[in-house]
Amino acid sequence: MPIQHYLAPTGIKTPPLSYAARVSDLLFISGIPGFDDTGILSDNFETQFGFVVRTFKQILADADTDVTHLVKVNVFLTRASDVATMNRLYADAFGPAPYPARTTCVVQALPNPAMLIEIEGIASLIK
Amino acid sequence: MPIQHYLAPTGIKTPPLSYAARVSDLLFISGIPGFDDTGILSDNFETQFGFVVRTFKQILADADTDVTHLVKVNVFLTRASDVATMNRLYADAFGPAPYPARTTCVVQALPNPAMLIEIEGIASLIK
Amino acid sequence: MPIQHYLAPTGIKTPPLSYAARVSDLLFISGIPGFDDTGILSDNFETQFGFVVRTFKQILADADTDVTHLVKVNVFLTRASDVATMNRLYADAFGPAPYPARTTCVVQALPNPAMLIEIEGIASLIK
Repeated sequence: MPIQHYLAPTGIKTPPLSYAARVSDLLFISGIPGFDDTGILSDNFETQFGFVVRTFKQILADADTDVTHLVKVNVFLTRASDVATMNRLYADAFGPAPYPARTTCVVQALPNPAMLIEIEGIASLIK
Repeated sequence: MPIQHYLAPTGIKTPPLSYAARVSDLLFISGIPGFDDTGILSDNFETQFGFVVRTFKQILADADTDVTHLVKVNVFLTRASDVATMNRLYADAFGPAPYPARTTCVVQALPNPAMLIEIEGIASLIK
Repeated sequence: MPIQHYLAPTGIKTPPLSYAARVSDLLFISGIPGFDDTGILSDNFETQFGFVVRTFKQILADADTDVTHLVKVNVFLTRASDVATMNRLYADAFGPAPYPARTTCVVQALPNPAMLIEIEGIASLIK
């Protein structure tokens, strides 16, 4: 079975990456930023988080799965001050428990200086 | 086969995550911090490293495996000055060779400002 | 099937890690730095990138695979100003489309202060 690539929707400009790639029963999801429908990154953390989650869940749906099948998530923030808000929003978006394994870190920057958060993940496609 | 979640022990307060999640023969382990038994993060790097390793090995044991079954490890530090010490301690804790594949990076911060290190990993559960 | 480790070539000094580790049909590749043949890290980003790619592709070749079998790549940079150059060079080195899933972040530092980039990845070994 070859690798199955899930591309960004037509009209969404991305760097050289697929939104996700599947091999066997694992789906690897790229670090997803929080652009809105007009290609803007809000300067509001909660707004960016909301668009990250919307895109992330759409990718899972495109692969015929959902957040309950995530096994590992990595959250990249650019401001330590957003950690508590992120955990609150994350629990709503990815819950209820049991949650996937997860690592969170605060990096110096994400690829676009306006990005406050990206989330990547690995999902199981076993039914 | 559904995802099997390995939760933090009762009484350990964590953000919304499982310590580890298993799918098929892979175990994905969260970024593990170095809290001591009383929930304190020492300001000493070697002390934090020791508690990271203790928790990490306990998670592996809970999944009926050990460090020789790790295929990939990621080490996140918050101070570049800890790299050499980390490599020395890591060789003891995760050795002897051959070691898992590994990436190390120094990030701006981890979720708790007192965290100096977190280690995440992927283990094979094939016997 | 046990884990198969791919070690750095004789004479290359590394921290306690394997260049890659295989379990089942997945190959996990360490974060690869851009040392040249004499063990030097150029202060030129494009030069470091070139050596990263050369080593990375050699590891894939040693496992009897190539970039078309990558499912996930992570790019770690230390300077946000290198993002655009990285994306241009990356498209050449890892293309053509469809590309693997990918996350890029700018970290405070990599293990050696002179490192400007490391790339890690996961490849499928299914033929």
